[in-house]
Amino acid sequence: MIEEVLHYAHVNKDKFIEDLRDFIRIKSISTDPHHIPDMEKAAHWLAETLKKSGCQNSRVYKTSGHPIVFGNFHSGQPHARTVLIYGHYDVQPVDPLNLWNSDPFEPIIINDQLFARGASDMKGQVIASIKAVEAVLSQKEEIPLNIKFIIEGEEEVGSPSLPEFLKSHRELLQCDIVLNLDAGMLSVSTPAITYGLRGLAYFELRITGPKQDLHSGQYGGIIHNPAQALCEVIAKMHDDQGKVTLPGFYENVRSASPEERERLAALKQEDAIFIQQTGVKKLWGEKGYSAIERITLRPSLEINGVNSGFSGSGAKTVIPSSATAKISMRLVPDQDPAEVRDQMEDFLKENMPDTVQWELLELAGGPASLTDPNRQEVQAMVDALAKVWGQKPIFQRSGGSIPVVAQMQTYLGVDSILTGFGLPDDNIHAPNEKLHLPTWSDGIDAIIHFLYNLVKLYAV
Amino acid sequence: MIEEVLHYAHVNKDKFIEDLRDFIRIKSISTDPHHIPDMEKAAHWLAETLKKSGCQNSRVYKTSGHPIVFGNFHSGQPHARTVLIYGHYDVQPVDPLNLWNSDPFEPIIINDQLFARGASDMKGQVIASIKAVEAVLSQKEEIPLNIKFIIEGEEEVGSPSLPEFLKSHRELLQCDIVLNLDAGMLSVSTPAITYGLRGLAYFELRITGPKQDLHSGQYGGIIHNPAQALCEVIAKMHDDQGKVTLPGFYENVRSASPEERERLAALKQEDAIFIQQTGVKKLWGEKGYSAIERITLRPSLEINGVNSGFSGSGAKTVIPSSATAKISMRLVPDQDPAEVRDQMEDFLKENMPDTVQWELLELAGGPASLTDPNRQEVQAMVDALAKVWGQKPIFQRSGGSIPVVAQMQTYLGVDSILTGFGLPDDNIHAPNEKLHLPTWSDGIDAIIHFLYNLVKLYAV
Repeated sequence: MIEEVLHYAHVNKDKFIEDLRDFIRIKSISTDPHHIPDMEKAAHWLAETLKKSGCQNSRVYKTSGHPIVFGNFHSGQPHARTVLIYGHYDVQPVDPLNLWNSDPFEPIIINDQLFARGASDMKGQVIASIKAVEAVLSQKEEIPLNIKFIIEGEEEVGSPSLPEFLKSHRELLQCDIVLNLDAGMLSVSTPAITYGLRGLAYFELRITGPKQDLHSGQYGGIIHNPAQALCEVIAKMHDDQGKVTLPGFYENVRSASPEERERLAALKQEDAIFIQQTGVKKLWGEKGYSAIERITLRPSLEINGVNSGFSGSGAKTVIPSSATAKISMRLVPDQDPAEVRDQMEDFLKENMPDTVQWELLELAGGPASLTDPNRQEVQAMVDALAKVWGQKPIFQRSGGSIPVVAQMQTYLGVDSILTGFGLPDDNIHAPNEKLHLPTWSDGIDAIIHFLYNLVKLYAV
Repeated sequence: MIEEVLHYAHVNKDKFIEDLRDFIRIKSISTDPHHIPDMEKAAHWLAETLKKSGCQNSRVYKTSGHPIVFGNFHSGQPHARTVLIYGHYDVQPVDPLNLWNSDPFEPIIINDQLFARGASDMKGQVIASIKAVEAVLSQKEEIPLNIKFIIEGEEEVGSPSLPEFLKSHRELLQCDIVLNLDAGMLSVSTPAITYGLRGLAYFELRITGPKQDLHSGQYGGIIHNPAQALCEVIAKMHDDQGKVTLPGFYENVRSASPEERERLAALKQEDAIFIQQTGVKKLWGEKGYSAIERITLRPSLEINGVNSGFSGSGAKTVIPSSATAKISMRLVPDQDPAEVRDQMEDFLKENMPDTVQWELLELAGGPASLTDPNRQEVQAMVDALAKVWGQKPIFQRSGGSIPVVAQMQTYLGVDSILTGFGLPDDNIHAPNEKLHLPTWSDGIDAIIHFLYNLVKLYAV
């Protein structure tokens, strides 16, 4: 039976590509208000395509931002379990346009690579999942699995409408596992599953001293310069071991298991690789952990920006009246962003000199997420990827944050399997974004295998 | 004889004011290229006025910037000594124009106050000195004193052409003492002589880390963030006693004499005054010195600006590739700006982590200056001011830098007497600049007394 499904996918490959091209031609740039009609068009195109693929109940939901598309194949089989496939139909802007070798919204294929904005991130992934489902549903024998889709239009602008939608549509979205194809492969031959993401706590610290900028000659030596006070307090946020000094910061950090550390070591991400990628003289960070451990299973604190006083060309002899910094922390399980905010407040109360005034604003925050690699549904994906690529996927933790994964855990109580068929050289968010079509076709096969593996798993 | 001179000044007061108004009407804003013709006009107006006042040799010198006006009354008396009167004819810009109550270049008089740009800083002072000399030279009996004028047009833009002019016109400018009226009174009843100015050493520190901005999720924890490195190194520039930690920074700092400290204490500039002026919660600075000592006879180090990464609204998760700071030091006798630059280099070599790269640019520099309050010419001014105001002038050291005073010492080897007849509420550099005409007239008298006191002094 799966053979017929795979056959359907293979013989219809060119039609799938044509649908992908149609989807790509819709200029769904979420950040640009000029493209609001395109966002609407993309959402309705998707709902229609989901219906054609066999999802009986597909519709477009309005939000306070761009619409969310919901699709649902409801199996007639009683007690069927449910997979929810997440995606986003919005794309990044295309500027600088002059660096593109072709029209970003007129996909062309050169040597098996399809060039266009959104080809890899993630219209290609969305169409792969819909077409895999279409192939599965093309069969006469109904699959004993409910398949739902949620495809948002605001991922590239921080998913502002998603949490509210998840909260208010729990029943609609009820499921056993989420499939999120918004991560990629390690290389063209090595699939990957991203099972851990760091969380985020992002603050703005504002320090004020004198009521206005002062002449540094007239007052230099008697005023605690706010820029200096800011530097002094920031300098105290790490100790000489590279550890963050906020009180209690590491208290809830989950220790890495030996198995986990081995898994990371197996990735062979040596320091030299990061030095080459970033161009720094040498790496830095918390003593006692390898670089790959420091950016995945350890939390970190970064100064994202500092600004105070004069920064034009030449000399201006001013004592600035204020100084601000953007400071963010990447969090790991089981750190709580609200607790981290308290820790930052406590740190500042303890370390800020009484010569200045300060306030702390919280700009963004979300917990880390972790999906147990030993979960049965994850193993269903491992087997699917291994079947297609002839090798098991690499398990990786990412240092970044994909808030929707934590949001699915928070609001729906459900884990995500984060994988995908994009490649490291796909130029996502950059000019000449592309999709490797043979990998994409293999990805459709892998999703089909995954769905049938789920059926087997849930039948037990 | 001096009575006749004073009489001349008093009966011609209205004519003097008319000349001042004419001078003010020339829009000599040095920073604005649109006003280059006005700068020329002002310079030639001055040369003409100097000639009319009795300075036989008066001319306009071209520079690579705005012209410099030179005037010279050469006494027929052999062995006559020479006073050089310094001034500037350029003024600050007038924006924001809407905050002015009257046209900044159409002087009006309300309640003895003359409102206009440059009225106090320092066209009023320049005309006071020229008119005092005119009064002196109006007498039949020739004064046994050479009187020279140098009036530049670039003071408000940092006097870029002056050092070269001083260097290449030493003979022309040869003199025994400089009179500089670009400082002010303590109050309408209290004249002041500023006998000390701090010097300046101004740097830009640039730190670079990764070759481009990095994603703080992907790399947070393994990169020494340049903004953080900058803060760490700036935080080390002061110790917990508020002392600057550059190696050797205090080595050449001249100790204050007990007499000097007493003189400063007599000013009764309590902390509360500075707190009220600046609006800070409390003062800060080097332990062991009073506030007035810290801003006059002690050096200081200020962060004039810091800039790195993202400072827009909201959150951007970036590790900045670079960070810069403007850092300047106010210097006192006998610190050498070139040595201070070496000290900063040494400090950075010792304290900058090896995870980043850095460079240090020198943006401005000049030594401190100090005129011995016991110098006879200074006493000549003390007596002149006391004669007019009925009380001796306050001796003050200023925390700021007036580079021309140090330049006169460096290039001509001559001290300056820094005083003037502006008042603290004259709104210099601000809208509604004004000049208190009774004080200004008294100032003309004081200059006349000063010149005759010099004659007496030099006759001995």
